[in-house]
Amino acid sequence: MSETPIRVVVIGGDAAGMSAASQVKRRMKSAEVVVLEKSEDVSYGACGMPYNIGYKADINDLVVLTAEEFKKKRGIDVRLLNEAVGIDEKNKKVFVKSLPSGRKYEIGYDYLVIATGARANKPPIEGIENQGVFTLKFLDDARKIKSFVDENNPEKVVLIGGGFINLELAENLKKLGMDVVILEKLSGILLNFEDELRESVYKELEKNGVELLCDVDVDGILDDLTVETNKGDFKADFINVAAGIKPNTDFLKGSQIKLAQNDAVDVDRYFRTNVENVYSGGDCALIYHKILDRNVYMPLGTNANKAGKLAGATIAGSNEQFGGIVGTSIFKVFELGVAKTGLSFSEAQKEGYNAVKTTISAPITAHGYPHQGKVTISLIAEKSTGELLGGQVVGNFEGVWRIDVIAAALYAGFTIKDVQNLDLAYSPPFAPVWDPILVCANQAIKQVGK
Amino acid sequence: MSETPIRVVVIGGDAAGMSAASQVKRRMKSAEVVVLEKSEDVSYGACGMPYNIGYKADINDLVVLTAEEFKKKRGIDVRLLNEAVGIDEKNKKVFVKSLPSGRKYEIGYDYLVIATGARANKPPIEGIENQGVFTLKFLDDARKIKSFVDENNPEKVVLIGGGFINLELAENLKKLGMDVVILEKLSGILLNFEDELRESVYKELEKNGVELLCDVDVDGILDDLTVETNKGDFKADFINVAAGIKPNTDFLKGSQIKLAQNDAVDVDRYFRTNVENVYSGGDCALIYHKILDRNVYMPLGTNANKAGKLAGATIAGSNEQFGGIVGTSIFKVFELGVAKTGLSFSEAQKEGYNAVKTTISAPITAHGYPHQGKVTISLIAEKSTGELLGGQVVGNFEGVWRIDVIAAALYAGFTIKDVQNLDLAYSPPFAPVWDPILVCANQAIKQVGK
Repeated sequence: MSETPIRVVVIGGDAAGMSAASQVKRRMKSAEVVVLEKSEDVSYGACGMPYNIGYKADINDLVVLTAEEFKKKRGIDVRLLNEAVGIDEKNKKVFVKSLPSGRKYEIGYDYLVIATGARANKPPIEGIENQGVFTLKFLDDARKIKSFVDENNPEKVVLIGGGFINLELAENLKKLGMDVVILEKLSGILLNFEDELRESVYKELEKNGVELLCDVDVDGILDDLTVETNKGDFKADFINVAAGIKPNTDFLKGSQIKLAQNDAVDVDRYFRTNVENVYSGGDCALIYHKILDRNVYMPLGTNANKAGKLAGATIAGSNEQFGGIVGTSIFKVFELGVAKTGLSFSEAQKEGYNAVKTTISAPITAHGYPHQGKVTISLIAEKSTGELLGGQVVGNFEGVWRIDVIAAALYAGFTIKDVQNLDLAYSPPFAPVWDPILVCANQAIKQVGK
Repeated sequence: MSETPIRVVVIGGDAAGMSAASQVKRRMKSAEVVVLEKSEDVSYGACGMPYNIGYKADINDLVVLTAEEFKKKRGIDVRLLNEAVGIDEKNKKVFVKSLPSGRKYEIGYDYLVIATGARANKPPIEGIENQGVFTLKFLDDARKIKSFVDENNPEKVVLIGGGFINLELAENLKKLGMDVVILEKLSGILLNFEDELRESVYKELEKNGVELLCDVDVDGILDDLTVETNKGDFKADFINVAAGIKPNTDFLKGSQIKLAQNDAVDVDRYFRTNVENVYSGGDCALIYHKILDRNVYMPLGTNANKAGKLAGATIAGSNEQFGGIVGTSIFKVFELGVAKTGLSFSEAQKEGYNAVKTTISAPITAHGYPHQGKVTISLIAEKSTGELLGGQVVGNFEGVWRIDVIAAALYAGFTIKDVQNLDLAYSPPFAPVWDPILVCANQAIKQVGK
């Protein structure tokens, strides 16, 4: 008589979901792992979509493993076009709808992982559903954009929203020869960066002929893709709307699963929800922030992978607590790198810190080395203790890796003094003898006094 | 009645010396600061010399501040061509020889900083003083090499010694169109790196047409610059010898200053020697290594700058202990970056650790991103505790910055588990969603089990 295997059901087949599924299967070979994915795609590098569009690369380049490969190589039962439409957490089952047939069925679970991700917000703008107006969140969005571009050769692009996705798109569509205008409803873009660093992004956009308008209210989009705003009309051949994202948790309404104010699933440091045997991670869930010592919503690919992996490990018996994120992110806009970790100055103030900020600009190669570039670095610290709270790096793309050193310092709980003591590598093509991080720390120490 | 100002005498006017002098003057405006420099150059980026040669740049590009500027801008009395030939530490004075005139004089000090650097070893090879045989340590060496190259247009280069200076020269002389042969007396080059990483350097040299021979005994150099060895004769038009360096401390023989076995000045974590009011730092001195918890000889520009700065601060009343180096270094050879921090596997074993090593190769950009490169990373850890002991990164030059993240992790005293938890930045042009450091940590954790 053989035992019934443990069944783990994962809802959602991208970063968090497939990481969880793979981890369970790796650690618990006998488990039955079922992944319910409502689209036709699993496990793809969503963050690569702007580049895939810009380089006119094959869309399949972004797929890491296909559903078929997950089945064959890892023994995971991936069910594409199967949407979870509800759960019954008391009786441990998921209600599923097979999209091709419309057939509904139930599947029981021992453990459930909610990894449904998020969807692009669509602001209530008239005409937002017109042909030629896109959002870019899923692989299928990229497919549609690519075929639209191929068929229509758009010349004029309007990007609604000035977040990093539209900034990456701006670079890539410009590369394809299009005119690009970005319309931002707030008073500026990248408002979570320090003013003096954000300024470089404005200059980089201008240098590359991308028009940026802020304080723009979009009134509507006409059939011919004219965008009507308080700052005039903008005729477009192609529009992308990037107005934030929203966790895909509607199907949990009515369940006992605790959601945060933005409808993201609340989890503990093992990615457990408040309901026994139900886990969650990725763009649909909160994640623990080490500096803030509380959960935040920070939907990024790295976070999703880590969350999924750890949730899977916990299900398989691991007792390892998540160390937490420190809030690291980076993106490229033309030749510029823009990176942040930890808290900004104003974020630190809001958290009650007596924050001080130090900003320096410094070359990224040695004095006298022929290839010069530079970065601007801000370090944020608590004045009384010198504790590092955050950092930002903006400048030549090849120099912004320094954000990862600051992220490591943050994770370590370093003071500015510790940062100053770091033994960073030096050779002329690589860094100046005083690396920009040390230059900044040498200045910052004067503000914190220890 | 005005007080006699405190006089600080600094022997040696490059990185450590000028950093000390500047720091004293910045913190103690009234101090009289005298720098004795036996050459005609102060404060230059010695590490930039191979590139200055290769790019045929102006030698003065390497000079950060001239002696004149130090006098005018910082009020430091820099005396070029003044050599310290001895000290009398009991009576607190230095014996000086003015090289142009041969005049000898004494100068008293309240504080003394010994920052005389090091000189290139000249192995006892017959013909090593021939015209066309060089060493590259001082700015004047670079001047001589550059004018020799300009006047003689050498086509065939023999580099004796396979350390990083000759590897950097190999790249730069190859760029000028020369044939380059490297002769190494040991069984291999870069023996402080793991085999599997060192291998990449061999391949890079081969790919770029640089001939490397190991186990070579140089018997002599003929007048026509033929190098006679146990592996045959090598005709050269230009020879550089890089056979290590030796601290410039001969003038201290007979004094009470404690020297290490290699004649480097021994210092504490304030860069104080055993003799009161006498400090030392830079290439002539030892430096505290945080992982080993003892002094080592690691003559690098970064270390010299830090040592000088802290020695100067201590003289001026600061009570700050040096945090220590972790042994970070990096260099470029053609398109390859080669970097190390902390202990290698065999170094860790020698120190009595139950060391484990994990090596992985991984791409440095995201799956599907068009520009691909990769790095190979080794992490060394103590098996019982998971404590990180060292790391090495070799690969595409633009990806080897990861050494600085490992250096920060080492400085923090991280375990492999901590490294695994790092919140490193991700976007497709910058890194894969699992950065190579995390890929390596995810493997390494299996070996240390915690």
